[in-house]
Amino acid sequence: MNIKIEKLIKQFAKLPRVGTRAATRIVIGLLQDKTGRAESLANALLDASKSIHPCSVCGVLTDGDVCEYCSDSVRKNGQLCMVRDLSDVLVIEKSGVFHGRYHVLGGSLSGVNGVTPDDLNIANIPARIKNENIEEIIFALPNTVEGKTTQQYIISSIGNMGVSFSELASGVPLGGDLDYIDDGTLTLAFGGRKKL
Amino acid sequence: MNIKIEKLIKQFAKLPRVGTRAATRIVIGLLQDKTGRAESLANALLDASKSIHPCSVCGVLTDGDVCEYCSDSVRKNGQLCMVRDLSDVLVIEKSGVFHGRYHVLGGSLSGVNGVTPDDLNIANIPARIKNENIEEIIFALPNTVEGKTTQQYIISSIGNMGVSFSELASGVPLGGDLDYIDDGTLTLAFGGRKKL
Repeated sequence: MNIKIEKLIKQFAKLPRVGTRAATRIVIGLLQDKTGRAESLANALLDASKSIHPCSVCGVLTDGDVCEYCSDSVRKNGQLCMVRDLSDVLVIEKSGVFHGRYHVLGGSLSGVNGVTPDDLNIANIPARIKNENIEEIIFALPNTVEGKTTQQYIISSIGNMGVSFSELASGVPLGGDLDYIDDGTLTLAFGGRKKL
Repeated sequence: MNIKIEKLIKQFAKLPRVGTRAATRIVIGLLQDKTGRAESLANALLDASKSIHPCSVCGVLTDGDVCEYCSDSVRKNGQLCMVRDLSDVLVIEKSGVFHGRYHVLGGSLSGVNGVTPDDLNIANIPARIKNENIEEIIFALPNTVEGKTTQQYIISSIGNMGVSFSELASGVPLGGDLDYIDDGTLTLAFGGRKKL
């Protein structure tokens, strides 16, 4: 096979949920397309990778200074939902169960993968609690060892600021990603969240 | 969701074998990555879409004037294998059952999708038969109505040039893509090809 095509297939095959066979189909389909889909996809990706960055307040990906959730005056203040990344925000938004503010950590603490507190969006949480009069922090992190470790680390690093902590009720399957949960289960999990 | 991200997800979701959920993961993963994977993928795609084009002889995607199959002096002349696109060439090459030359049509005739003979890489087949002393044309097109229609059209348009025609033996499941066939079945299909 042509080396350029082979390299491109390898890059596509590294994307989440895309294997070598799907990557081959994708690349050949794009390169054979005469309507310029390959270029338009590449340009959209370049444009987004230049203009999209984490929101300066909560970490949600945005092309403005502050994201649509932080700048939305209709959303309730007082509750802060901690999630791992933007896709978890999208799942929660889709279910319509939560109307407070979000905080995207950008990952979970992990000794194996070398993710330390410095790699996560943690530093400005105390400032947010003060500025936004946060009364409750709801942890909606993955129900894994890494997720629980991260949760525990944040609770101990915040200390006694008069804020209460809760986590989603069971309903989130052990070892599961928020990505794969149906809206009903997610609603139950929000409703039955446990005081810590 | 941010409009730019939403648009990008929609573009990724249109790729073959990628749904909306996988596209969301891919886009968020790329945009959150700090090692520049999004830009490197976009640039590789832009570069390929500019430099890759069909081989002037057989239609296989290449960045040279003539592809690696046409310029390979070790391959046998005399047999020409007609396929729909490059991914079919890759499947046949992987099985190692065929050592002749290829001809990539770039699609199948289809009234429904508005694909006419002018859209396919058909015009230079008579010239190839003469120049390359082709004795046999082997059709390895999808076993569908469109594939058979295309095959019949090519046979009648070539007419009496002293070339014999064959098609892959059954073994290719009805309605199936060459992409999903194991090497053993493909070898049987080549061995048992039928004279037309």
